[in-house]
Amino acid sequence: MADGRPGWRAEIRAAIEGDHARLGRLVPFVLHGLIVFSLITIALDTIPDLSDRTRDFLDAAELVVVVIFTVEYALRIVSATRPLRYVFSFWGIVDLLAILPYYLTLGGHFRIIRALRLVRVFWLFKLVRYTRALDTLGRAIRSVREELIVFLIAALVVVYFCAFGVYYFENAAQPDKFASIFDGIWWAAVTLTTVGYGDVIPITTMGRVFTILVLFVGVGIIAVPTGLIATALATIRREHATKTEPPPPDRLP
Amino acid sequence: MADGRPGWRAEIRAAIEGDHARLGRLVPFVLHGLIVFSLITIALDTIPDLSDRTRDFLDAAELVVVVIFTVEYALRIVSATRPLRYVFSFWGIVDLLAILPYYLTLGGHFRIIRALRLVRVFWLFKLVRYTRALDTLGRAIRSVREELIVFLIAALVVVYFCAFGVYYFENAAQPDKFASIFDGIWWAAVTLTTVGYGDVIPITTMGRVFTILVLFVGVGIIAVPTGLIATALATIRREHATKTEPPPPDRLP
Amino acid sequence: MADGRPGWRAEIRAAIEGDHARLGRLVPFVLHGLIVFSLITIALDTIPDLSDRTRDFLDAAELVVVVIFTVEYALRIVSATRPLRYVFSFWGIVDLLAILPYYLTLGGHFRIIRALRLVRVFWLFKLVRYTRALDTLGRAIRSVREELIVFLIAALVVVYFCAFGVYYFENAAQPDKFASIFDGIWWAAVTLTTVGYGDVIPITTMGRVFTILVLFVGVGIIAVPTGLIATALATIRREHATKTEPPPPDRLP
Amino acid sequence: MADGRPGWRAEIRAAIEGDHARLGRLVPFVLHGLIVFSLITIALDTIPDLSDRTRDFLDAAELVVVVIFTVEYALRIVSATRPLRYVFSFWGIVDLLAILPYYLTLGGHFRIIRALRLVRVFWLFKLVRYTRALDTLGRAIRSVREELIVFLIAALVVVYFCAFGVYYFENAAQPDKFASIFDGIWWAAVTLTTVGYGDVIPITTMGRVFTILVLFVGVGIIAVPTGLIATALATIRREHATKTEPPPPDRLP
Repeated sequence: MADGRPGWRAEIRAAIEGDHARLGRLVPFVLHGLIVFSLITIALDTIPDLSDRTRDFLDAAELVVVVIFTVEYALRIVSATRPLRYVFSFWGIVDLLAILPYYLTLGGHFRIIRALRLVRVFWLFKLVRYTRALDTLGRAIRSVREELIVFLIAALVVVYFCAFGVYYFENAAQPDKFASIFDGIWWAAVTLTTVGYGDVIPITTMGRVFTILVLFVGVGIIAVPTGLIATALATIRREHATKTEPPPPDRLP
Repeated sequence: MADGRPGWRAEIRAAIEGDHARLGRLVPFVLHGLIVFSLITIALDTIPDLSDRTRDFLDAAELVVVVIFTVEYALRIVSATRPLRYVFSFWGIVDLLAILPYYLTLGGHFRIIRALRLVRVFWLFKLVRYTRALDTLGRAIRSVREELIVFLIAALVVVYFCAFGVYYFENAAQPDKFASIFDGIWWAAVTLTTVGYGDVIPITTMGRVFTILVLFVGVGIIAVPTGLIATALATIRREHATKTEPPPPDRLP
Repeated sequence: MADGRPGWRAEIRAAIEGDHARLGRLVPFVLHGLIVFSLITIALDTIPDLSDRTRDFLDAAELVVVVIFTVEYALRIVSATRPLRYVFSFWGIVDLLAILPYYLTLGGHFRIIRALRLVRVFWLFKLVRYTRALDTLGRAIRSVREELIVFLIAALVVVYFCAFGVYYFENAAQPDKFASIFDGIWWAAVTLTTVGYGDVIPITTMGRVFTILVLFVGVGIIAVPTGLIATALATIRREHATKTEPPPPDRLP
Repeated sequence: MADGRPGWRAEIRAAIEGDHARLGRLVPFVLHGLIVFSLITIALDTIPDLSDRTRDFLDAAELVVVVIFTVEYALRIVSATRPLRYVFSFWGIVDLLAILPYYLTLGGHFRIIRALRLVRVFWLFKLVRYTRALDTLGRAIRSVREELIVFLIAALVVVYFCAFGVYYFENAAQPDKFASIFDGIWWAAVTLTTVGYGDVIPITTMGRVFTILVLFVGVGIIAVPTGLIATALATIRREHATKTEPPPPDRLP
C-alpha cells in the first residue's frame, strides 16, 4: 500500500495496514486484539442476570472499542486516495456496520432492541480481514472448486432423496415428527453429516433399512469434500516448498 | 448428438441435449430449473394443513411442469432415430414414470392415494441426467472400485460381528431394545458411521467394553472408503492437469 | 494347492480351494453363499416370538448347512497331506467350532442354552477365509503398522486423560453418571469417536470448557489413522499400477 | 547418554534411559509397565463402594509404585551431572509432582482431600516421556504447523459465528437452553465436531435452516486438519523410505 508518495495520508494507510516503516504491524495487531476483546464482551453481554457492575464494565468496554473503531473508520476515509470508493466498498460497509448500531442506539438515550446491538458481530468479518493466513484456505478451496460444486450438487440430490425416503417410510408412523419432506431434510442433514442428535429417528422397519443403506452410501459422499480440501492444501504446500527449495537429490537423474 | 444430417429431428435432439447451434444450452438449462422448481413444490405439497390457495397454486404449478415434461417426452420420441429403443431405455422409462402418475390420478377426476403422486420424485433422476459433472465422481468411484468392494465386504462383516456382539451382551439386560440381531444391525450401522442417535445404547459393562473396542477398530474401517474416493478424485484431477499443462520444470532432467 | 501329483486327495483339495481344473471356483462360491445364508438364518433365529413354521424352516436350514459343512470338514481332513496339522490349525479349529455346537445341543435331544448355538457366528470367520480380497486391506494396514501403533498409544493416552478430566470436573455434579474414571472412559470413547450418544454429557461449566478443548484436539488425533490407511491403500494401488503399466511418458527423460 | 566417561553416575543414567550395555531397555520397560499399572489403580481407586480388601490392595500397590518412583527420582538427581538443572526441568517437576501428593497426604496419618491424590495423573506425562514413538506425530504436526494455525483461527471464527447465529435464532424459543452465546459455543462445538449429543437442539425453522447451512460448510472446515496431519505423516514416512532405500527403477532415467 506504501505507494512511494510521501505524505501523511500514505503514512496513516501504512500504519493501519501494518506496512509502516517504524510502527510495523503494531496497529493491526492492536486492532486485532481489540476485535477479539470486543467479541468476548459481546458474548458476555448475552448472559442473562448479569450484575450491574459487570454490565457497567461491558458498557464502558463497548464505548472504548467503538470510539477506537470510529477513529479507525475516520482515518481510513481521510487517508484513502478515493474516500468514496472505500466507503462503498465491502470492507467500508463492514467497518460502518460495526460501529453504526452503537450510535443509533445511543441517540435516543435509551436502549433500543438488543437485536440491533448484535449487529456488532460484524466485527467477526473485520477479524477475518486482518487474518491474511486464511488466504491459503481460500486458495485450496478455489483449486478444487469444480469438484466441490459437483459434490454440492451430489449432496443436495442425496439430501433430497433421503428426505423424501424417510418421509415416505416414517410419515404414517410418526406424523408429528416427519410431517413433511422439510422435516425429512432436517433429519437427512443431521444424519448424513453424522451429527445424529437423536431428536428425529426412524422407527419403522422399512425406515430403518432405508436409513442403513443410505448411511453407508450417503455419509461417504457428504464427507469426500473434506478430503479434497486437505489434499489440495497439501499440494499447495508442496508446490510452495518446490519453489523455494532445490529438488531433492534422489529425484535428479 | 448433432450427427451432421440436416432435418428437424436432429434440430430438436440438439435443442434438448443442449448442442443446438443457436439455442445452445438454453433448453436443458430451463428444464433443469423446472425440475428444481417441481422438486420444491413436491416438498411443499407434503406440508399438512396448507391453505387452499397454496394448494391451488401447487396444483397449477404441477400441471404446468407435467405439460412441459410431456411435451419433452413426446419430442424425444418423435425426434429419436429409433423411438422404441428410447421408450424402453432407462431414461425413457424415467421420463415416463415422472409424468405418468399425474395422468393416472387425473383420469378418474378424483385424487387417488398420495403415494402414487410421490412417484414424481423420479424427477430427481432427471436432474442427475443433466448434471454431467457427476461423471467425475462416477469415474473416481470406478477407479477405486476394487478397494470399495473390499471395504463393502469388510463393512458387512464388521457390522454383522458388531450386531452379533451387542445382541449377545445386551439382550438379557435390554430384551426390548436388543430383541434380535436385527436390532443389533441397526445399532451397529448407527454407531459405526458415528451418527449415534442414542436411541439404543449398551448399558452392561461387557456391552460397553465391547463397544469401546469396536469403536476404535470399526469406525476406522467404515470411514476409509471416503478417503479412497477423495484420493482417487485428486489423482483424476492431477492426470487431467498433466495432460493439458507441460510438466513442471523440476521434474525434467 | 494342485501340487502336480495325481490322485483323489489333490482333486478334492483343488475343488474346495477353487483351483480345480473343471469345477473352477464353483465349490468355494457355493460354500460362500451357504455361509451368507446361514448367517442370515442365525440372525432370524434370534427374533423372539417366531411362528412355529418359521422356526421349523430355520431348524431345517440349519441342519442342511451343518451337514454340508460337516462334509466339508471331513473332506478337508481326509484330503489333507497331514490331517492332524489341519485339525489343529487356526482354520481347522474354526471349521470344527462352527459345526460342533450343533452336535452338542443335538446329543441330548433337547435344546441346550442358546448361547452355545450362537457360537455359529464362527461362520463369519469362515466367510473371511474365502474373501481373499481382504488381503489388500491387511497389506495396507501392515504398511502403516508403526504409525498405527503410535496412534493406538496416543489414543489410549488421550482417552485416559479425557476420562480423568471429565471425572474430575463432573463427578461432584453427576455422581451417578460419572461415578468413576471407567464411566469417564465410556464417555471419552463415545465422544472422541464423535458417536455422541448423549447418555452421559458434561453439565458443569468447567466440564464443558474441558470438553470443547478436548474435542478439537482429541477428535483429530483419533481420526488420523483412517486417513493413514486410505493413503496406504492408494499407495499400494499405485505401486501395483506402476508394475503392470509402463511409466507415463512425461515421467521419462 | 553414555558419554564415554566411566563411573557409576553414567551407569545409572544409562540404565534409566535404556542405553545400558547389559541391562538394555529393561529398566525403562519395567517403569513403563509400572506407570500403566498405576494408571489402572488410579482408575480403580475412583470406583465408589469398593470392598475394604480391594482398597487395601490399591493402597499397597500405590505404596510400592510411589517407593519405586521415589527411588527413580533420587537416582536421577544423584546421577545427573547437574542435579539442580534436572530438578527444575520440566520432567524433573513432573517426576516430583507424581510422587509428592502421596507424601503430603501421608504426613498427617489421615486421608486429605481426594483431589490432591488425583494429581497422580501426572504419571500419564511420565508415560509419554518414554514413548519416543510419539515424536513422529509431533514431527508431522510441526510440518503442517502453519496450516493448522490457519485452521485453528478459521475454526474459532466458525464456532463463534455459529454460536452467535444459533443464539440469535433460538434464544427467544428456548431461553433456558440457549441463554447466552456461551451456550451457543457449547452447541457449536458439539455440532461442528459431529458429536451431536442432542442435549441442545435448534427447534425453530430459522434455527434449523441456519444449522443445515452451517453443517455442510462448518463440518468440512473443522475436519480438514485431520486430513492434513494424515497427509503429513504419509509424507514423512515416504521421505524416510527414500533415504534408506534406493529409488525405484522406473524413476531412474
